[in-house]
Amino acid sequence: MARIAIDMDGVMADTTQQYINWYAERYGVQVDKATLYGQPETSGFPHGKEVIRGFLYEPGFFRTKPVIKDSQEVIKALYDKHEVFIVSAAMEFPNSLPEKLEWLEEFYPFIGWQNIVFCGSKTIVQADYMIDDHVKNLQPFKGEALMFTAPHNVNITDFKRVNSWEEVGALLL
Amino acid sequence: MARIAIDMDGVMADTTQQYINWYAERYGVQVDKATLYGQPETSGFPHGKEVIRGFLYEPGFFRTKPVIKDSQEVIKALYDKHEVFIVSAAMEFPNSLPEKLEWLEEFYPFIGWQNIVFCGSKTIVQADYMIDDHVKNLQPFKGEALMFTAPHNVNITDFKRVNSWEEVGALLL
Repeated sequence: MARIAIDMDGVMADTTQQYINWYAERYGVQVDKATLYGQPETSGFPHGKEVIRGFLYEPGFFRTKPVIKDSQEVIKALYDKHEVFIVSAAMEFPNSLPEKLEWLEEFYPFIGWQNIVFCGSKTIVQADYMIDDHVKNLQPFKGEALMFTAPHNVNITDFKRVNSWEEVGALLL
Repeated sequence: MARIAIDMDGVMADTTQQYINWYAERYGVQVDKATLYGQPETSGFPHGKEVIRGFLYEPGFFRTKPVIKDSQEVIKALYDKHEVFIVSAAMEFPNSLPEKLEWLEEFYPFIGWQNIVFCGSKTIVQADYMIDDHVKNLQPFKGEALMFTAPHNVNITDFKRVNSWEEVGALLL
């Protein structure tokens, strides 16, 4: 049994798709996800980063994020076999805390409150595996870092990469 | 420089005093703190545990807890010298999350969001020192466990004990 720390945004929740959805609804322009590959998060939209980043402070943004494909089934199986912690750097956006808890309860009802961590820096987290889409979280991690592919990280080559939850399952189940 | 994980309830926030205050306001009986020593948390009031425990679910309970003596000054000094994380097992009470953040911001404004952790189980926390008032948090901790004296834990002898923030300062500053 291993301890696995799983990130939420960009790993369980499709943050990029949520930016695209909210942008389309707000400004009437459907941005093609493929055009965002290799660009920093919140870049690549007709409006500047500050507009896209502004969504993060609006009620409902975190509560209604789409679930990433296969994450529910694979995390359930991981949860049954390993010690799974959901570790989200949520403190930067205090309004996201209750929304993230409700979102987890809706889509991953099997996850107990004992296994949820909302933090700022993830340097304090001790686990065997960390599945995350951000260099800043994976870099200081002492265990095995797994970079979950997201549009903003496709050009980073410093970490072992998992491209889907199917790949995570093949590795850890 | 050491990494120090500091608990909130019973260590920074005087939870026992808050129970006494709310009980006095609600039921008109001022319980003497001395009579609660050595009793389980929420026990020792004329009403049963379920009444006292009910306060935990009411708005404002976490937001208005009294600050424990000297904690602001000593934690500020620790923060300047060491790597300090505030680690609170807050997930059991989701309504406490925003209240706890606001409380920290009011009374410990020097603590950055990067250094705050709200979790369930604290087994995932890696640090050199953990200052906590509960056996369940200190027991599995791999670093040096420091039991902060609270009425409910006075008879426990399994851990090195700190009786006040003055004592914490003498040890770690």
